[in-house]
Amino acid sequence: MKTSPSEFRFGRDFTWSHAEKAIARKAFNLALGRELDAVIREAKHRASKITQPSELWDLEHYLTGRRQSIDRTYDYRYSVLPRVLGDLIRKGRLTEDDLHGLSEDKLAYIHQVATH
Amino acid sequence: MKTSPSEFRFGRDFTWSHAEKAIARKAFNLALGRELDAVIREAKHRASKITQPSELWDLEHYLTGRRQSIDRTYDYRYSVLPRVLGDLIRKGRLTEDDLHGLSEDKLAYIHQVATH
Repeated sequence: MKTSPSEFRFGRDFTWSHAEKAIARKAFNLALGRELDAVIREAKHRASKITQPSELWDLEHYLTGRRQSIDRTYDYRYSVLPRVLGDLIRKGRLTEDDLHGLSEDKLAYIHQVATH
Repeated sequence: MKTSPSEFRFGRDFTWSHAEKAIARKAFNLALGRELDAVIREAKHRASKITQPSELWDLEHYLTGRRQSIDRTYDYRYSVLPRVLGDLIRKGRLTEDDLHGLSEDKLAYIHQVATH
């Protein structure tokens, strides 16, 4: 499907095959798992070093910030998924290889998001 | 100073000598320190056991709850301090011995709060 510039910009009108949905879901879950594992490691590290009460609230603040950021970032609606996947590549949570099998137009869109 | 029933109930009109303020401040800080030490121990214990992402947010929720509870409980205004000290005795964070040196009327008020 050839997309118009505005469709290309918003990424809303892509059609997802069953196979593509499976690829996207797997990549999405992979990135989310990496993100959460990193937060678990960091939270354990921070907790283990606490000696002062103020550091308790620093840990609370860190967890709240990570939860809110993850909630904002990991949005699986297909209307925004190409942008989300592009952002995850830019942030190093995914590689383009993780998305092998998506259509060329989606990969081009995702690549554009990832590199801008 | 003999207090009327309403003063006795609200505890607002006690007069605090310098010596009593020092005793109250020391006891208050002792209880707060014990409370915070317990939260530090519990947070380290909970963090060390985390294996699932949901437990991160359980830890966040625990810390938020403890912070809010401590903020509410540890109110050093002299107008409410007898009630606060009584509450801390009831919760086992202080003993009446920690308040040795306060006037008899304050100790009677605090005892009443602690045992009701």
